Amino acid sequence: MDKKKEQASVDRLFVGVDVGGTNIECGVVTPEGKIISRSHCATLVHDGGVDAVIDRIAGTINEAIAALPVSEGRQIAGVGVGIPGLVDPVNGISLNAVNLGWRNVPLAAKLTERLHIPVKIENDVNSYVYGEAMYGAGRQYDYVLGLTIGTGLASAFIINGEIFGGAGHLAGEIGHIPFEDIPYVCNCGQTGCLETIVSATGIARQAADAVKDGMDSMLARVLEQQGKLTARDVSIAHEAGDRTATAILNRTGIILGRALAAIVPALSPDVIVIGGGAAQAGEALIAPLTSELRARLLPVFAERLQVRTGELASNAGIIGNAMIAKFSANK
Amino acid sequence: MDKKKEQASVDRLFVGVDVGGTNIECGVVTPEGKIISRSHCATLVHDGGVDAVIDRIAGTINEAIAALPVSEGRQIAGVGVGIPGLVDPVNGISLNAVNLGWRNVPLAAKLTERLHIPVKIENDVNSYVYGEAMYGAGRQYDYVLGLTIGTGLASAFIINGEIFGGAGHLAGEIGHIPFEDIPYVCNCGQTGCLETIVSATGIARQAADAVKDGMDSMLARVLEQQGKLTARDVSIAHEAGDRTATAILNRTGIILGRALAAIVPALSPDVIVIGGGAAQAGEALIAPLTSELRARLLPVFAERLQVRTGELASNAGIIGNAMIAKFSANK
Repeated sequence: MDKKKEQASVDRLFVGVDVGGTNIECGVVTPEGKIISRSHCATLVHDGGVDAVIDRIAGTINEAIAALPVSEGRQIAGVGVGIPGLVDPVNGISLNAVNLGWRNVPLAAKLTERLHIPVKIENDVNSYVYGEAMYGAGRQYDYVLGLTIGTGLASAFIINGEIFGGAGHLAGEIGHIPFEDIPYVCNCGQTGCLETIVSATGIARQAADAVKDGMDSMLARVLEQQGKLTARDVSIAHEAGDRTATAILNRTGIILGRALAAIVPALSPDVIVIGGGAAQAGEALIAPLTSELRARLLPVFAERLQVRTGELASNAGIIGNAMIAKFSANK
Repeated sequence: MDKKKEQASVDRLFVGVDVGGTNIECGVVTPEGKIISRSHCATLVHDGGVDAVIDRIAGTINEAIAALPVSEGRQIAGVGVGIPGLVDPVNGISLNAVNLGWRNVPLAAKLTERLHIPVKIENDVNSYVYGEAMYGAGRQYDYVLGLTIGTGLASAFIINGEIFGGAGHLAGEIGHIPFEDIPYVCNCGQTGCLETIVSATGIARQAADAVKDGMDSMLARVLEQQGKLTARDVSIAHEAGDRTATAILNRTGIILGRALAAIVPALSPDVIVIGGGAAQAGEALIAPLTSELRARLLPVFAERLQVRTGELASNAGIIGNAMIAKFSANK
């Protein structure tokens, strides 16, 4: 048996890690995209500086590997790590991750040093959409445009199983497309950015505004009880039949539909996959989005384009990162 | 000398053909993108049906080959043909070319039959932008978004020397993105399509409207003399200091800048190359476009993005099509 064949007969596994501002989520994944072992840990961004956080990431990875069911002939062939913000995946550097407080951290090198396993890093939205594109809602399609509607809004585009990065690996930063009729000032300083409406933060902001404007809504009572409102509160109120909540989700979907009507003709995706916390609003958000988008597209696009919600939830990041490591190992 | 080496030592040439509703333009092109022989002919769409037009295309190609400077060891290794409308480049079929009156014409097969040379076909905007990306204004860049502002408006995206087609090879049909504040009804039936303003037709339409509205402009005199107005008339009037003409080009640039502000964050091109007849307006169109676009982009995009006018004019299509044939021959 030659070297190549011998290697192929070993069941190679990949680790996927999702590093957020709050938690580190980790899983060992088979080449077929199945998570067979897990671990997690608090990120504790402010506890001990960058290297302490990287120690925690390495520790979480080792924990997931240690928790593997005993089985011979298995090897960890690579690790993929998704982190927020601007990433240089070629050199393995976290260029700017605002909610980790990181700038120019050579994360891949620092993890490889600790783990002695090849490490790839990627922007977390790219990882999420890659997971959905390979094993989730986009698995049957060649051209997958994915969005995460979370604290902010961003997209990723997967072309035939490869993440499209574009110049500076910046493709997908769609949260700051400006709209004339959006009145809110964004964190970026600009007025009218898409994500001031289309994000969990944006949905909560619209809810707070509706209450302030004296709209008749159960959200007023929730605000009084909790002192603040979240996107989840809006979803719950909608499910309870609250018209103000429904109108907020409807408006959010319509505005996202308008933005996508400018992007879809340039890219021609087969499918749009919607994920992120705010996507849990489901049809109340997706239905107006889809109907607004279709109405604005040429029939040739409207007829073939699919819009779906993500299927893998928080597993998408773990699987996506593991599959990025696999892709790199197979190159 | 083995077969492979022998072939490589022959100077292989490629033919590029641009088929429009009015003219067929043809050139024999070196592998380095230099046109060394040319021919052209009227398309005469209504003279003799599809096969007669294809005979004329084949005749024009043979003419350009016959006009080659005598030189031994040269062979024509492939032909690339750009045609308007919807194209299936994999199967070589013109799916729908409105201004040729073609539907489902197996153009590549019919030309190969006549020429006994491998033929590739492509959408003409893709060919134009491919030419500019390889040997024109985009030659130094990996990610080239190109636009042609002609009778209509369309774009193409070249990723590392490959045309990005997207689902159904439809990527780039950006002319019909709708805008709330555009009042014109488009040929497609929708109101407010981008190309009702941003096209040669759209510029002429705005000029006719300005005259009708009684704007003080030399365009009124031109309309009286000619019975109609063109985009070229608007450019000439602008150069002569006509404020109404300048305002029309300014508005056109601003509206295109707004549309591109939604597309650029999704794609992250290195450079935007503007071509097509209406691009001859030059800075009067490009300056407001660029300034509107930059003002609407995150600094991270605005700082690195380049906006340029095409450098190859009508040669871009010939060179682009020839290079598509070369790309296919080298696969």
